Amino acid sequence: MSVADKPEKPERLLKSLGSSVSRRSLLGGAALALGGAALAACSTSTNGGNVNAATGDSLLKTIQSRGTLNVTTSLLYPPEFYKDTNGKPAGYDIDLLNMLASDLKVKLNIIDVPDNAGNIANVQSGKADLVSAGLVNTPARSLVLNFTRGYVPYTQVVIVPVSGGANSVNDLNQAGKKITALQASTAFFRAQLLFPKATVIPLAQDEALLDVATGKADACLIEIYLATPFIAQHSNVKLMNNGQAVATEFGCWGINAGDYLFWLYLNNWIAYNTDNAQIPGMYKKTIGLDWVQPS
Amino acid sequence: MSVADKPEKPERLLKSLGSSVSRRSLLGGAALALGGAALAACSTSTNGGNVNAATGDSLLKTIQSRGTLNVTTSLLYPPEFYKDTNGKPAGYDIDLLNMLASDLKVKLNIIDVPDNAGNIANVQSGKADLVSAGLVNTPARSLVLNFTRGYVPYTQVVIVPVSGGANSVNDLNQAGKKITALQASTAFFRAQLLFPKATVIPLAQDEALLDVATGKADACLIEIYLATPFIAQHSNVKLMNNGQAVATEFGCWGINAGDYLFWLYLNNWIAYNTDNAQIPGMYKKTIGLDWVQPS
Amino acid sequence: MSVADKPEKPERLLKSLGSSVSRRSLLGGAALALGGAALAACSTSTNGGNVNAATGDSLLKTIQSRGTLNVTTSLLYPPEFYKDTNGKPAGYDIDLLNMLASDLKVKLNIIDVPDNAGNIANVQSGKADLVSAGLVNTPARSLVLNFTRGYVPYTQVVIVPVSGGANSVNDLNQAGKKITALQASTAFFRAQLLFPKATVIPLAQDEALLDVATGKADACLIEIYLATPFIAQHSNVKLMNNGQAVATEFGCWGINAGDYLFWLYLNNWIAYNTDNAQIPGMYKKTIGLDWVQPS
Repeated sequence: MSVADKPEKPERLLKSLGSSVSRRSLLGGAALALGGAALAACSTSTNGGNVNAATGDSLLKTIQSRGTLNVTTSLLYPPEFYKDTNGKPAGYDIDLLNMLASDLKVKLNIIDVPDNAGNIANVQSGKADLVSAGLVNTPARSLVLNFTRGYVPYTQVVIVPVSGGANSVNDLNQAGKKITALQASTAFFRAQLLFPKATVIPLAQDEALLDVATGKADACLIEIYLATPFIAQHSNVKLMNNGQAVATEFGCWGINAGDYLFWLYLNNWIAYNTDNAQIPGMYKKTIGLDWVQPS
Repeated sequence: MSVADKPEKPERLLKSLGSSVSRRSLLGGAALALGGAALAACSTSTNGGNVNAATGDSLLKTIQSRGTLNVTTSLLYPPEFYKDTNGKPAGYDIDLLNMLASDLKVKLNIIDVPDNAGNIANVQSGKADLVSAGLVNTPARSLVLNFTRGYVPYTQVVIVPVSGGANSVNDLNQAGKKITALQASTAFFRAQLLFPKATVIPLAQDEALLDVATGKADACLIEIYLATPFIAQHSNVKLMNNGQAVATEFGCWGINAGDYLFWLYLNNWIAYNTDNAQIPGMYKKTIGLDWVQPS
Repeated sequence: MSVADKPEKPERLLKSLGSSVSRRSLLGGAALALGGAALAACSTSTNGGNVNAATGDSLLKTIQSRGTLNVTTSLLYPPEFYKDTNGKPAGYDIDLLNMLASDLKVKLNIIDVPDNAGNIANVQSGKADLVSAGLVNTPARSLVLNFTRGYVPYTQVVIVPVSGGANSVNDLNQAGKKITALQASTAFFRAQLLFPKATVIPLAQDEALLDVATGKADACLIEIYLATPFIAQHSNVKLMNNGQAVATEFGCWGINAGDYLFWLYLNNWIAYNTDNAQIPGMYKKTIGLDWVQPS
């Protein structure tokens, strides 16, 4: 019933990790949730979402003549998208969208809804031109929307002991090595794929982390936003390879299916601003992490 | 008369290299062959292959309502695509296609034909929705089909002597250096491009390899599936730079031209599963080589 | 009034740098200039440039049946595009276009105009099928044309003192460090983004460079084609990290908007020839720089 094709992030755990976890850590949950309502709306669409092929029209022209770019998001998750102290939209996504609107020579209009079911419904109804909410381009979602290339990386890293810890995936992919990961998560399935010769142990997230700190496991595969605060509190563990990603999902902009001209404009915009270091620089500045290049 | 734009792989040579050469080494030949029949069918097509632009229809919708994904391939080349001991389709491509069909919530139907002329004819006639047969996206073929981004890398590497061998393309690109490559092959033309200051010597494949083992040449540029078994039998040669690719061609999925929605869905699927390490992990596990990122 | 969204390259400065500056250094200016005439033509277009969506036709078919590929460029800027001593089109772009025409089995017809306003007007009027003039895919231009992926990198690098100079962006991003860049240029804005903790000083280009040579600044962010001749004349400065790009813009082919089949063919052509080392090899051979991979 849902286009979420992996488990929600464990929001309760985040609280247990304490105040060093930024509110951004809640982002994943929202970004992955997608209600059945939006999907149902799509599957009863008479044109399968391919709204523009017949006429050759594109939202790109509509936006320019309208003079406004309508974007739907959920202003709940700093530093990516939230309300500043004056109640105005702020964050990494908003900064990018202001650049985009400026390049289109139009005003930016942010439509704020609490979840991705609402975000996707807003795109499908035409209320919004695009959704910018860290939505990962999963296969299930891409039956509903068309996605641009990634504008925000969400990376998975490996935590190892500071003393004697492994240096590479190959070091860990050995018989007898123990790798922990959140049970039933994509990290768990990915760990099985990356470490077929090792023993991959599904655990609750806090156990998965603590087993490395207490020497019960050799490594834990985990998203970087959870790894960072844990390491800050446990000096005997570190990121393997200085935190190099072993897997990355990307948040992408989503638009209605079939609008080739709008898709190409947005894709070109992201490519241009990625290569010229603009987007990686903004990501580093606001999110605090190094950019990861999409494939 | 053919869409093969480089010489077929030397299948006879493969036999001379002995039993350590897997049957996969034959793959290249099949993947590169494309009969004149398929091309002729295309060039007489009234719509130039652009079957969907007028109506906005997409095979993506047809596949979902049909409940079956029809894929044409040639089940002759393990470990990429072959029949298992029970006669069922198996291999790297089949594993990916099962994931794809699962994401589309449809059944996978494999259509097995012996060569790429048949594979391409199956796509053009509508018998198959896509071809998954390690087809390289050559310019000639892309006049006939539309290709996704690569899902399987075929890499060219350099063989050098273990003792005193070069460490880089720059080391080899010096006056007086001798580089061998299969005569009239893309490897030969690529060697001329990569080593303009060196002497590039076209030879039969076995001579090209043996000249490095016997000290007559400084290096040989060759596809990795041929290099690996030769090195296994000749301990005085090795892969330069631990086998880092100096050039890579990618096998891609091919579909009928003009179906933007189907193309974008497949392209997004491959991008998502490449970034998140799923496809690179499956490639490493089944093919035994490290993934190479497409541009 | 112009689709140039960053300042023109300082052509006057180039003269002051002396004869070691190749005429190619003028390329940037032409590549970035785009007259208001072309834009006006576009904005009054009744179909927004989306010339093919309604009928499903593609220039790809027209070119094949016509037997000629019409390309507009400005033959003024060696080594990228110029007239050889016999007055014939020559250079990196021309070499690529000859390969492209050969793959399409058609003749190459070069249309030579002095500036990009003319180049873009030629594409929009249908006189040319594509523009190959190092045109960067800026957001403003991509409202007028559709761009392929990049076929020619233009990179920005950092100049540092030979003795005691910084080794990385992080080394330079420290309070008290002084970074120079051409005032009001993209390099200046990029420097502010890359070095938020340092002091970024906008100067005339020659001052920006000389301040590093005279020890007044720690680094200068600059395009590599300007850096190379300056370093040749000032032995106490060098490229940081052997000239690794800190930002890259790419010259792209431009076509009329909405022609999905032509766009996909060209994009596939560049991807295929990039991965297989053909384009990077030609770039190294003719331009003399290492290839930079687009995102």
